[in-house]
Amino acid sequence: MTTLYSYFRSSASYRVRIALNIKGVAYETAAVHLLNQGGEQLLPAFTQLNPHALVPVLADQGKLLTQSMAMLEYLDERYPTPSLLPGDAFARAHIRELSLAIACEIHPLNNLRVLRYLKHTLAVDEAQKTAWIQHWIKLGFTALEQQLAADTTRGHFCVGDAPTMADCFLIPQIFNARRFDVDMAPYPTLCAIEAACNALPAFEQAHPAQQPDAA
Amino acid sequence: MTTLYSYFRSSASYRVRIALNIKGVAYETAAVHLLNQGGEQLLPAFTQLNPHALVPVLADQGKLLTQSMAMLEYLDERYPTPSLLPGDAFARAHIRELSLAIACEIHPLNNLRVLRYLKHTLAVDEAQKTAWIQHWIKLGFTALEQQLAADTTRGHFCVGDAPTMADCFLIPQIFNARRFDVDMAPYPTLCAIEAACNALPAFEQAHPAQQPDAA
Repeated sequence: MTTLYSYFRSSASYRVRIALNIKGVAYETAAVHLLNQGGEQLLPAFTQLNPHALVPVLADQGKLLTQSMAMLEYLDERYPTPSLLPGDAFARAHIRELSLAIACEIHPLNNLRVLRYLKHTLAVDEAQKTAWIQHWIKLGFTALEQQLAADTTRGHFCVGDAPTMADCFLIPQIFNARRFDVDMAPYPTLCAIEAACNALPAFEQAHPAQQPDAA
Repeated sequence: MTTLYSYFRSSASYRVRIALNIKGVAYETAAVHLLNQGGEQLLPAFTQLNPHALVPVLADQGKLLTQSMAMLEYLDERYPTPSLLPGDAFARAHIRELSLAIACEIHPLNNLRVLRYLKHTLAVDEAQKTAWIQHWIKLGFTALEQQLAADTTRGHFCVGDAPTMADCFLIPQIFNARRFDVDMAPYPTLCAIEAACNALPAFEQAHPAQQPDAA
């Protein structure tokens, strides 16, 4: 039995849902509402699963994992086909570097708890908060667009003609970008990959709006 | 020939130096000074290597890689012994989740360009900046301490009695914490692991002070 503790709009949860769907792994969703009761992820019932107080958490075979990228690596080792990391060591590292450019350079800066710190501790107003969110997305997307546009290993997807780990990271980040009104016109390569991904049931069924806890 | 484009005090560069040393891979350092000339990482000579304008970059066998964690995975696949990710799929994922708790939840928030945005765009003063840096380190370390203290797979190192990828991430983050005067007393488990790591030549020789570009 596999359970994903997640929040429908959490970008990191969305990544893992895509991977579970690509692998064809049946799972249950345990909804953790990030806004109810000041954040259910901060309550003891959840922090005993993950002291970092962050979704998602993956429960599989009686064990718990935190960190979405660790979950994707785990799923890829446990269910090797179809591979999220095809190719030789360098090709695999390339898929990971694209994933990490989102996981490390964009997403953490726009995490809920960071936005709360900006607002409550640094008294940043709504316009400044939106500018902050957009700034880090645009900075990361500009570099990713340049990297992917020039990349001879790119196909319909970030790497080749089947989805890899990199697409599992890119699509939730584009969803986030659109949610925060980032103009996607400067990123035609990213948008073409988005269209290819969202045509697949694995991505479609992982979309926030399709989740049992969707608002 | 292997070249690491790095900055002596960059936490992400420090991780890769440790891994290269553990694997016994000879490499050259190409220094990229993050403060000279407004930041050498922002100059075309560097951004043509990495459009994300971030160190480190690893050049190996005529190919380039960005993102320190992708480099560590690559080195571990290319030079399997000693392994940075020993064990079964779950054990490997556990090492990665510890690494990612630092790579995604602590380090990106205290990156130079983030601190610059806080100062120049949000007019945050020095005291607020220091409080920001310390806040994210303490938040992450508190959860890591709890996680590792309770972890039956922990040994002298984060996992077991030999260094893994997780130690390559932890030690540079502790170096950073000390640099920003974070009181380490609440984290005895992390400090014990730090002592075990720093007794090894692979860690010692990767220390910022030992680098050719050290100030």
